[in-house]
Amino acid sequence: MDAAARDRAAELAQQLRVDSVRAAAAAGSGHPTSSMSAAELVAVLLGRHLRYDFDDPRHPGNDHLIFSKGHASPLLYAAYKAVGAVTDEELLTFRTLGSRLEGHPTPRLPWVDVATGSLGQGLPIGVGIALSGARLDHIPFRTWVLCGDSELAEGSVWEAFEQAGMEGLDQLTALLDINRLGQRGPTRHGWDLPAYARRIEAFGWHTVEVDGHDVDAVDAAMAEARATRGAPTAIIARTRKGRGVAAVENREGFHGKPLPDPEEAVAELGGPRDLRVKVEQPPAAEEPRRDGADRDAALPRWKTGESVATRTAFGEALAVLGTRRGDIVTVDGEVGDSTKAALFGKDHPDRYVECYIAEQQLVATAVGLGVRGWTPYAVTFAAFLTRAHDFLRMAAISRSAINVAGSHAGVSIGEDGPSQMALEDLAMMRAIHGSTVLYPCDANQAAALTAAMADQPGISYLRTTRGDTPVIYGPDEEFPVGGSRLLRSGPDDQVTLIAAGVTVHEALRAADQLAEEGVAARVIDLYSLKPVDAQRLREAAVATGRFVTVEDHHPEGGLADAVLESFGNGHPMPLLTRLAVHSMPGSATPDQQLDAAGINARSISAAARKLCAGERPVIVEERTNAS
Amino acid sequence: MDAAARDRAAELAQQLRVDSVRAAAAAGSGHPTSSMSAAELVAVLLGRHLRYDFDDPRHPGNDHLIFSKGHASPLLYAAYKAVGAVTDEELLTFRTLGSRLEGHPTPRLPWVDVATGSLGQGLPIGVGIALSGARLDHIPFRTWVLCGDSELAEGSVWEAFEQAGMEGLDQLTALLDINRLGQRGPTRHGWDLPAYARRIEAFGWHTVEVDGHDVDAVDAAMAEARATRGAPTAIIARTRKGRGVAAVENREGFHGKPLPDPEEAVAELGGPRDLRVKVEQPPAAEEPRRDGADRDAALPRWKTGESVATRTAFGEALAVLGTRRGDIVTVDGEVGDSTKAALFGKDHPDRYVECYIAEQQLVATAVGLGVRGWTPYAVTFAAFLTRAHDFLRMAAISRSAINVAGSHAGVSIGEDGPSQMALEDLAMMRAIHGSTVLYPCDANQAAALTAAMADQPGISYLRTTRGDTPVIYGPDEEFPVGGSRLLRSGPDDQVTLIAAGVTVHEALRAADQLAEEGVAARVIDLYSLKPVDAQRLREAAVATGRFVTVEDHHPEGGLADAVLESFGNGHPMPLLTRLAVHSMPGSATPDQQLDAAGINARSISAAARKLCAGERPVIVEERTNAS
Repeated sequence: MDAAARDRAAELAQQLRVDSVRAAAAAGSGHPTSSMSAAELVAVLLGRHLRYDFDDPRHPGNDHLIFSKGHASPLLYAAYKAVGAVTDEELLTFRTLGSRLEGHPTPRLPWVDVATGSLGQGLPIGVGIALSGARLDHIPFRTWVLCGDSELAEGSVWEAFEQAGMEGLDQLTALLDINRLGQRGPTRHGWDLPAYARRIEAFGWHTVEVDGHDVDAVDAAMAEARATRGAPTAIIARTRKGRGVAAVENREGFHGKPLPDPEEAVAELGGPRDLRVKVEQPPAAEEPRRDGADRDAALPRWKTGESVATRTAFGEALAVLGTRRGDIVTVDGEVGDSTKAALFGKDHPDRYVECYIAEQQLVATAVGLGVRGWTPYAVTFAAFLTRAHDFLRMAAISRSAINVAGSHAGVSIGEDGPSQMALEDLAMMRAIHGSTVLYPCDANQAAALTAAMADQPGISYLRTTRGDTPVIYGPDEEFPVGGSRLLRSGPDDQVTLIAAGVTVHEALRAADQLAEEGVAARVIDLYSLKPVDAQRLREAAVATGRFVTVEDHHPEGGLADAVLESFGNGHPMPLLTRLAVHSMPGSATPDQQLDAAGINARSISAAARKLCAGERPVIVEERTNAS
Repeated sequence: MDAAARDRAAELAQQLRVDSVRAAAAAGSGHPTSSMSAAELVAVLLGRHLRYDFDDPRHPGNDHLIFSKGHASPLLYAAYKAVGAVTDEELLTFRTLGSRLEGHPTPRLPWVDVATGSLGQGLPIGVGIALSGARLDHIPFRTWVLCGDSELAEGSVWEAFEQAGMEGLDQLTALLDINRLGQRGPTRHGWDLPAYARRIEAFGWHTVEVDGHDVDAVDAAMAEARATRGAPTAIIARTRKGRGVAAVENREGFHGKPLPDPEEAVAELGGPRDLRVKVEQPPAAEEPRRDGADRDAALPRWKTGESVATRTAFGEALAVLGTRRGDIVTVDGEVGDSTKAALFGKDHPDRYVECYIAEQQLVATAVGLGVRGWTPYAVTFAAFLTRAHDFLRMAAISRSAINVAGSHAGVSIGEDGPSQMALEDLAMMRAIHGSTVLYPCDANQAAALTAAMADQPGISYLRTTRGDTPVIYGPDEEFPVGGSRLLRSGPDDQVTLIAAGVTVHEALRAADQLAEEGVAARVIDLYSLKPVDAQRLREAAVATGRFVTVEDHHPEGGLADAVLESFGNGHPMPLLTRLAVHSMPGSATPDQQLDAAGINARSISAAARKLCAGERPVIVEERTNAS
C-alpha cells in the first residue's frame, strides 16, 4: 500500500470510529467500543478488497459481508454511510422506532444478508453462502465474516470451521477481531493469538496473525487470504476494544454502552470526517440456471390401503421436486438414510449437501443457501432440530425462507426411547415467527405437503413419522396449507376428534368404536397446525360443542394449543379434552407406546365417551365478539 | 499386562460382543455393531482402570462412566452384566416395555448418571462432572466418557473440549471409538486419527492414538491418561464397527440393526461366556460439606413503590441463597453482569463457574454438577437458552434437577432488537417434560421464586425482565409454585385480565382505565406458568366468563396456552382474547415496543372493552365433566 492509500485507510478507519461513537451517542445505547476495535479491518476491506455494488445488492457477483458480531452494528452502519448507501441523517436514527438501523443488523437493510446478534451464527451462515458459491453458483464471489473473539466459544463456530475447512472453501475469509474483552471481562484466550491459530489451523484453515490496527498488515493479510487456494483463511487480528479513545480503550466496563463523553471522544479521534469510499464493482456474473430437468415430473402416488411411512413419502416426493425444480437443495445431518432425504441425494447428488451430525450448521447452511436464492430443505430427526432452535429463531428474523423436515416424531418411533422422540418440536416450530407447521398422516398427503411447503414464505416445517401408516387419501387429493380434512361427519355428531399424523388413524378407529356404541364422532385431520383451519374448527365447535384432541407430542404447544388458537378474539370455545404424551416414555413397541401415552384409539374413545356423558354445551358464534 | 490378564481382557471383550449381539437379537433392534467396536475399550476399562462400587452407585469416590454414544447401550448393559449388576435374564429384556434397559441409557438404571442418545452431550456433561470433582468436591474420581466418531461433528463437543482443556481437567478421559462408519456411511475423517488428534490437542488436551482392539495398547493408553497431569486425555482408538463378525465388520449398511444371523455371529465370536469381572473399589471419600454460611440469611427486601428490575432481584436473591445453602452453584454464560448472576459470583467465587459464550456447555455443566449433588443455576439471556434446547430436553430425560434463569425476556428489552428478545422461551420451557416455569413481575416476587425453584424437582425456569418494574408486593408475601395472585377483584367483575411479568403492570393500568369507564376487571398475576393455578382460573371463568391474556412472548406456547390448559378435561372455557407479540419487532424504546406489539395497557383495555360489548357467557362447572 502506498503512503496515500495508507493514509486514506487510516482516515477512513477513524471516520468509522467517529460515526460509531456518534450513532451510539444519538441512540443512547449500542456498542461503540466493539465497533472501534474492528475499524481498520472494515476500512481496509471496503477500500481495497470488497467487491460489491451497493446500488444492486442482488448482483450475483457481489461479495458477501456478514457481521457475525452483530452488536458492532454501528461500525456496519458507519461503513454503509462511507460507501454512500445511507445518509448521515439516517445513521443518527440508529435504534429508534421505525429505523432500518436496528440495534443488531437485520435484512430490513438490503445489504444485510442475515440477521445477527445471537453470537456464533454469522460464520456458520457464511459457510453456507460460500458453499453455495463453490458448489452451486460457481461464481467467485468472496464471503467475508467479521467475528468477535467471545463468540469463538460457541460450538456452532467450530461446526463451521470444520465444514469450511473440509470443503476447502477458499473464497471464505473470517476476520477475527481479537479485542481481548468480552461483555463481562476478559475472554478466555485474551490476546493469545496463537491459541486461536492452533485451533483453527487444526480444522484445516489457513491463518494469518496481524496487528488489527496496522492497515498495511491488514491489507497484506486480506491479499494473502484472496490468494490462498484450497483452504479458507482466518485473519486473526489483535485489536484494542474502544481503540482511539483513551477513556475506554482496552478498559473493562465499557461493553454495550455509549461513550461517556462522545464529543470529547470525537475530538480525540480527530473530529468528524466525510470521506466517501469507492468500493470495487463485482465482476459480471449470471444467476445460476435453476430450471428443473422435468417441471412436470409427477409426485409419487400410493393407493389407499397401502402402508407407507410418511418419511418415505417425503423423501420420494422431495426427489421428484428436485427433478421438477432446479432450485431445490437438500441438506442432510448424516441421517439421510433414516429421514429418507438420501432419496433426493441419489437423484441429485450435486444439490445434496452433507453437514454430518451438526444440526446448527445444518440449518445455517440452509439459511446461507437461501441467501443465494436456492430453496433448501434441511432434514434430520425432529428431536435433533432442537439443537438448532436458536438458528431457526434467528432465521425468522433474517426473513429466511427455508424448509425444515423432521422425522421420527413422537412416541410412535417405539423401541429407541425418549432421546430419539420429538415431543417438543411442534411447540418449538409453532412459536417461530411466521412459521408454517405441517404434519401429514399418510403418504399422499406427505408428498403433497412436501411440495407445497417449498412455496411458503418464512420457516416451513414438516413433521414425519418413522413407522408405516395406512394410505387413506387418494394421490390426487389436495391439501392446501392452512386447510384440514373432515374424515367423518354427520348431522348428529356429538363430539369432534381432532388429530394429526399418526393419531389420525387412532382417531378413525376410535370413531368406529364410538359409532358402534351409538356415539357419532366427527373426525378432523388437522394436518396444517400453523396456519390452522379456524373455520373448520369453529364449525365443529358449533356442531358438536365437544372436542377431543390427540397428539403424539407433549401437552404444551402442540395440536391442542393450535386448535384453541382458533378461538381467540372472543370466539366461544367448546369443551375440550386434551390427549397428549404426559408421561416419560421408555422403550416399547410403537403400539405399546401409543397405549402407554394414552393417545391410541382406546384412550380417545374413552375420553369422548366421558365428555359426551355430560351436558352438551351450546356454542353460538356471536357477530359482536368474533372477528 | 501379563499374558493371563491380556487373555482375560480379550475374552471379556468377546463376551461383551456376544452379549451385545444377543441383546439386540432378542430385542429385534438396537446397535450391536456400534457396541462391538468399543468392546476392548470397555473390557480393559472395567477390568483394570475403573474404580466403582456397583453395590453403591452413590459412593462419592466412584468414577463416572458415560456412554456419550448412547446407542452403544447393548455394550453398556453387557458390561453391567459382566460386573454382576444385571442378570442375563434382564439383559434380554433390552428395549421391551417396562425394562430398565432402554434403547438408549437413562438413569432408570442406578449406574447411569445421565440419559444419552442425542449425540454430543455425554462429553459436555462429563466435563461438568469432572469440573465438579476438581473444583467443588475435591475428590479424585475419574470421569470416563465413551464417544463415537460421528458425534465429534457436534459443536457442543468442541465447547466441551475447550472448557476441559482450559480448566486442565486431568481426571477426565475421553475414549474415542473411531470406527470409521456413521449411520449412513463413512464419517468425515474416517480413520484419520491424526485429524482428530490435531484438533483435540489444539484445544489443550493430551492425546494418545491406539489400535482400539489391542488390549495392551488400550491398557497402556488408559494408564497414560491416569498418569497425565494438568490436561485431560483423549484416547483416540482406531476400531472396526461390528468387529469380530465378518458379515458386518467394517461394512456399511449395518448401523442400528441386529446382526443378520445372530447365532452364527455368537459362534464366530467363540460362543457365550459367563466371565465375571471384578471392578476395583473406589477409595474412601466423603461427600463435600454443603452447609450454608448462614442458613437464616434474609432474602433482599424492597419496598412497594420502588422500581427494580427482576433480573437484579434474581441476582441479589441468588447471592443470599448461596449464603444460606452451600449446595448452590451458579453457572454463567459470560453475561453475568447483565443477568446479574455475577452478584452470586462476587459473594461465592468458589461456586461460580464461567462457561463463556457456550450455552450448550452451560446447561451441560449444570447437569454434571447436578449429578454430583450440587444445586446448579444456569444463567444467560433467555433468548440464548434456545441454543441449549436439546440439552434441556435431554436433562429432563436424565431426571436432572437443575435451575435455569433467562433474562432480557420479550420486547420490553427495547432498543437491542429481536435477536436479543426471548419470545419463544416460555413455549420451549413449558414443553420440557416435568418442568416448572416461573415469571415474576416484581422484585420481591422474583426473590421469593428464585429461592423456591431450588426445591423443585426437574427443570425449573425463571424468566426475568431487563428494565425496572414497580414493586407491588411486600417483602414478606408468599408466592408458592403453582399459585397466582389476585390483584383486582370484585363481585361485579365483567372480565379477567391475566398477565405475568412485565405485562402485570400494564394489566393493572388497564384495569384502572376500565374502572373509570365503569368496567370492572379482575386482574390475575399468573407468575407460575407451569404448574398453573387452575383453580383460580376456573373461578375467574365462572365469575367473569371473559378472559384477556397478555404476554410479552409470541402467541404460541406461552401464557395464553398455559391458561387454557386449566380448561382441559371438559371444564367449560371462557371467551378469550389473546394479546401477544404477533409482529416482528425492530428497535424502539421499551414503551414503544409494548405499544407496537399491542400488549400495553391501551391494547388490553381495548380488548377488554370489545369483549365486554358482547353478551356475557354463562360458565357453569359441571361435576360430570370436570375432573
